[in-house]
Amino acid sequence: MALNTALPRLVALAGGVGGARLAHGLAHRLDPDHLSIIVNTGDDFEHLGLLICPDLDTVLYNLAGVHHPDQGWGRADETFHVLEEAARLGHDPWFRLGDKDLALHLLRRQMLAAGLRLTAVTAELARRFGVVHPILPMSDDPVRTVIGTPEGELAFQDYFVRQRCRPRMVGMRLEGLETARPAPAAVAALERAEAVVICPSNPYVSIGPILALPGLRERVQARPTVAVSPIVGGQALKGPAAKMMAELGVEVSALGVARHYAGLIRGFVLDQRDAHLAPAVAALGLRVLVTDTVMTDTAARVRLAGEVLAFVRELIRES
Amino acid sequence: MALNTALPRLVALAGGVGGARLAHGLAHRLDPDHLSIIVNTGDDFEHLGLLICPDLDTVLYNLAGVHHPDQGWGRADETFHVLEEAARLGHDPWFRLGDKDLALHLLRRQMLAAGLRLTAVTAELARRFGVVHPILPMSDDPVRTVIGTPEGELAFQDYFVRQRCRPRMVGMRLEGLETARPAPAAVAALERAEAVVICPSNPYVSIGPILALPGLRERVQARPTVAVSPIVGGQALKGPAAKMMAELGVEVSALGVARHYAGLIRGFVLDQRDAHLAPAVAALGLRVLVTDTVMTDTAARVRLAGEVLAFVRELIRES
Repeated sequence: MALNTALPRLVALAGGVGGARLAHGLAHRLDPDHLSIIVNTGDDFEHLGLLICPDLDTVLYNLAGVHHPDQGWGRADETFHVLEEAARLGHDPWFRLGDKDLALHLLRRQMLAAGLRLTAVTAELARRFGVVHPILPMSDDPVRTVIGTPEGELAFQDYFVRQRCRPRMVGMRLEGLETARPAPAAVAALERAEAVVICPSNPYVSIGPILALPGLRERVQARPTVAVSPIVGGQALKGPAAKMMAELGVEVSALGVARHYAGLIRGFVLDQRDAHLAPAVAALGLRVLVTDTVMTDTAARVRLAGEVLAFVRELIRES
Repeated sequence: MALNTALPRLVALAGGVGGARLAHGLAHRLDPDHLSIIVNTGDDFEHLGLLICPDLDTVLYNLAGVHHPDQGWGRADETFHVLEEAARLGHDPWFRLGDKDLALHLLRRQMLAAGLRLTAVTAELARRFGVVHPILPMSDDPVRTVIGTPEGELAFQDYFVRQRCRPRMVGMRLEGLETARPAPAAVAALERAEAVVICPSNPYVSIGPILALPGLRERVQARPTVAVSPIVGGQALKGPAAKMMAELGVEVSALGVARHYAGLIRGFVLDQRDAHLAPAVAALGLRVLVTDTVMTDTAARVRLAGEVLAFVRELIRES
């Protein structure tokens, strides 16, 4: 605790695997009173009669240390017996739901049916996994990301998983946003936060929905905020971020990401491979940290988290 | 079809494993136009957010040939990965839901959520399992068997599975019966039936709920009906039938079962071990068939079904 008194009270904004990895690293550095993770729920969808929350679960599985070591989703040591049988019975198994994963979805559905809100359900599931850091859905209300393509709109998981991001993205829309409110616990965490870290998640479909909720962008903007680039060497480490940037006519580089967040953030974290972009990022009025941002293992997550924290502390001191 | 023209159009009433075994045997003897199986749904219950229909599923699994060869429920070659993980996450795994079994429950819940009635859902599931004989829930409305014990009432599966039938049964009640209607397809099958076979299922908790639905007992009574004793040598082959009879003060024997059905049926099938009871059963005004009723394997099911059919044909000729 002596260590933490010098550490900031932080909120991390996270989407899928990149966000989950940095959140995991930060959780090694900060106690639960100093770190809350607000997670995108725009990817959530109903499937097989269950509510699937891919980003919440990826963050949960990573913090619990039960995540698949290589793929960006699901559990380690997973089997697919239910899905295989359902497929034999005519179900299209395009969305890979494992048996362990299903156990969580069944418990979540049961708790939701009992009237708990998604924030409370997520807290209870986290408790059962032994996860002590608050994992906070951005909203308890359904917000559903819809991807615009030349052939029409696609629900996010349809675009992302079934069609493997192949259709060209010409726009996106957040269904339910008109009536959705941010989750009270997420708002409270931001209110208490001394700083915010935007994890290396997709700026459009992972971080975008969080910032689109009423009042959240303003609260992030009001604090020293650091974003870690999800684009390294002109490519996304996971997912369609680079492809989307190209299709939306944005420069596919860490600089493109920095421009996307300019006006919202004060500091930007670049991978060392993109060190040559540091002057251009600085010219946007941003402080820059150049380091190794590729989190190949837990040690790399914890190391990057430490560097990001030091960077955040500098920004807080200056603010 | 030449064979079947001489065979009766039959309805079988079935509960759990004993009923499923004879229904399976009958399905080997009669084409789908000559055999419908009306199944008890009083055992159904909501669990893990799913609708579990133990008797419907036992009949389905037996007719599909995917039933567990020894135990009276569930699938062959089953695993329990979802349940094991749910238990690790705090779920009490008292009801053993296997992974393959769960696939069916998930698909059923999805179809019910889409607005299909239980009869239509069961028909669709049967189709997917390649089962051609109509498996008909007794009702599309919820009817729930509640067991009275000295310590109060227990939901059926709580009594049957969690408490392993240990509490003394002092009575039973069918929750929802006041408003439940028999399923139209079940009524239509009985209307078309030339005869009815009451399978060797528990007379109270398996057959009782079917007969309790408005109009069903009368329709059974109006036809040549044969019951196969679930009590052999003073014992139930599976389940609590013998224990229940003793607790309700009824003679625990095939004769006790025959007395229970007297006034409803015209013929009664006794196991050869109970041949000495044949005169007392006949004295109730019933035709009696004495044979080997213990269905140890598929061949035994088909053989017993053949004998029961011949017996039914005699009764039809005489009626």
